[in-house]
Amino acid sequence: MNPRQVELITIGDELLLGFTIDTNAAHISRVLAAKGIEIVRRTTVGDEADKIAVAVREALDRTGAVITTGGLGPTGDDLTKPSIARIFGREMKLDESIAAQLEQRWRARFPTSVFPATNRTQAEIPEGAQILTNRHGSAPGIWLEDDRGRWVAMMPGVPREMRGMLAEEVLPAIEARAGSAGTVVLSGTLRTTGIAESAIAEQLGPNFLGDPRTEAGSLPLAYLPGVNGVDLRVTAKGLAPDRAKILVADAILKLRSRVGAYAYGEDEADLAAVVLDRCRELKLTLAVAESCTGGMLGERLTNIPGSSDVFLGGVIAYHNDVKKKLLGVTAGDLEKHGAVSEPVALQMAAGIRESTGADVGVSVTGIAGPGGGTPEKPVGLMWVAVHASEAKARRFHVGGDRAEIRQRAAQAALEMVRRALSKG
Amino acid sequence: MNPRQVELITIGDELLLGFTIDTNAAHISRVLAAKGIEIVRRTTVGDEADKIAVAVREALDRTGAVITTGGLGPTGDDLTKPSIARIFGREMKLDESIAAQLEQRWRARFPTSVFPATNRTQAEIPEGAQILTNRHGSAPGIWLEDDRGRWVAMMPGVPREMRGMLAEEVLPAIEARAGSAGTVVLSGTLRTTGIAESAIAEQLGPNFLGDPRTEAGSLPLAYLPGVNGVDLRVTAKGLAPDRAKILVADAILKLRSRVGAYAYGEDEADLAAVVLDRCRELKLTLAVAESCTGGMLGERLTNIPGSSDVFLGGVIAYHNDVKKKLLGVTAGDLEKHGAVSEPVALQMAAGIRESTGADVGVSVTGIAGPGGGTPEKPVGLMWVAVHASEAKARRFHVGGDRAEIRQRAAQAALEMVRRALSKG
Repeated sequence: MNPRQVELITIGDELLLGFTIDTNAAHISRVLAAKGIEIVRRTTVGDEADKIAVAVREALDRTGAVITTGGLGPTGDDLTKPSIARIFGREMKLDESIAAQLEQRWRARFPTSVFPATNRTQAEIPEGAQILTNRHGSAPGIWLEDDRGRWVAMMPGVPREMRGMLAEEVLPAIEARAGSAGTVVLSGTLRTTGIAESAIAEQLGPNFLGDPRTEAGSLPLAYLPGVNGVDLRVTAKGLAPDRAKILVADAILKLRSRVGAYAYGEDEADLAAVVLDRCRELKLTLAVAESCTGGMLGERLTNIPGSSDVFLGGVIAYHNDVKKKLLGVTAGDLEKHGAVSEPVALQMAAGIRESTGADVGVSVTGIAGPGGGTPEKPVGLMWVAVHASEAKARRFHVGGDRAEIRQRAAQAALEMVRRALSKG
Repeated sequence: MNPRQVELITIGDELLLGFTIDTNAAHISRVLAAKGIEIVRRTTVGDEADKIAVAVREALDRTGAVITTGGLGPTGDDLTKPSIARIFGREMKLDESIAAQLEQRWRARFPTSVFPATNRTQAEIPEGAQILTNRHGSAPGIWLEDDRGRWVAMMPGVPREMRGMLAEEVLPAIEARAGSAGTVVLSGTLRTTGIAESAIAEQLGPNFLGDPRTEAGSLPLAYLPGVNGVDLRVTAKGLAPDRAKILVADAILKLRSRVGAYAYGEDEADLAAVVLDRCRELKLTLAVAESCTGGMLGERLTNIPGSSDVFLGGVIAYHNDVKKKLLGVTAGDLEKHGAVSEPVALQMAAGIRESTGADVGVSVTGIAGPGGGTPEKPVGLMWVAVHASEAKARRFHVGGDRAEIRQRAAQAALEMVRRALSKG
């Protein structure tokens, strides 16, 4: 039994039916990996006692350490505890304090109806189990362990409850028994935008960081294209924490040396936050004029806490009349060049700068589709303009469905601001 | 072997490490469930040949039918095919046409470097395998089957490629062997907003739809609270399609009879689309004035294709100066009542109506946090106003983090418009 290896079993018909996307699994993996503890297998089963028992027994035999989520809630089918108790040969026993909590909760929900005796069974916990406190909900978690040191930690499926219990109860228990981390899994990400995956691949060439299969110290490089650009991720596995840190930092530095112009940040960096920080540094205020993005650009900027010292606001100029009335776009240019054109983008950026008094105005106008495209102006065509000390406009043609086109347009607009304000 | 039961194995270190959330799994489950085919277990393993082989062999022994995703890509570790070929006792053989495609792709990415001979191994497929066409990418899928009719369908992990292959190749093959659906899994959802889960629970009481454990024809009811409100979902399992349809429709009708005032739609309904449809019906145009939501309300409305015939645009009035300049909010009221107040919300709604000429103006002003709260005006406090034929304002106090508070505010604003324009 390797004390740094754990299996995860997520339980619920909602998961198996695909109604719920299993975000818990990714969260648990990340939190554990950061401490050098590896999820070696993940299993999802439905709300059936037999299926739960079989999956847990197999995982105990294979790995000896199991985290489960789901099947603990007071209104759920509550099959996890008795199924797993049976594997450990433990009886279920009523816990009076949990029963009192459940009854209290029932009365709060159904003040006029009687607490059914059958519901008290939900307060039963396996003999000899350790209770894991749930600070964010009513269903407590359970830690069960046999005399060979094999254990199961049962957590609720509600993400907020699970996250709290993982951090406060389960992770410390696993770490205590695993001892200090010999090795960790450590990743670093360089975030780029405005350059295609294939163009990065050509710039880097094959095995840019060395071949991890044959060269010690070479980290595998993953290309992760997304709607906001291509993330380049390197991952060090099975190394001592210090060594992993150095290798990851070196790899990121090497990637920057080649594609640095397109890189806006590392790890979880948000381009909106990068732009706000840069404006703050330069003591500049910012305003937006949006057509096809319809508010998304403002939404992304205001999503960042503390944006109000830089971001003044903007105009969503969806209809051409609003472009004229609130941004001063001329009827002649709208008629002559159309709403999706360089002159209109420039007038929108200038207009919002003037009407709000912002130092920097940025505008987006384009065709998000699915309708409205023509051979000359196809779906995905965008004009973005930035008006700071000087005015610039740029044409983009982005792909994807309506939602993706809008996201790409918003990201392109933020990137144009970043570049306009970059040093040098 | 039940021909309507399948296991799913998703393969990839990125999944196990938690970097990627497994959206493929939910998609495959939903698509199959709609055809009465059940995913009975889901397993995730990393990019290791042994782990893949063990998981697939177990699933074949248990269920006899397995879908895998991942590990097929030309740049990936490509372990899925040889691992599974070994289980079926098949040799790997080079497929010349696939090799030619891979070489072509390489040349497109790295025009100046030589295609390495080792990469040709990626064009090897198991003897006797059937190739599943990939219309959205380069890595083909594989269908392998033994003489007992046990099968594995291997699909790529890239969602767009997987979705196409599932619909065009894998699903038809599974359906062909399963025969016409005896039974289906069918769900119906009633979407509510503006009412807490506990309040709905109290209105419905326990077992409102009957007790599914003891009463035939009673469907289980799930409360699914989310940031946009509480969804009420009923699910019929193991019933004939016609019978399932009737039971689900009846249950939704019964739920509507009790919480209808809070219900804005069914299944995938989006409140923004509901509002736009209602405006269209009444031939009304709409504009928004947003403070704390920062563009999110406009973003949600313009996310709906065809919104431009109803939605004119709006003003993001983040800074108080913008509220004054572009919406005509008076300095006196801002000073006396503060930006988050009834008079300011009303003036914002009236102002945007006037400046855009829209029939309906809606405004939101509030404190999204995490900073900026006071004892009198805490984080989560919102004022929403709708100005149509008459003006109304309402105070909300919503919970959650900054992102949730903003989403709840946008949803509350849309719901106020829906109610203002509802019949009667």
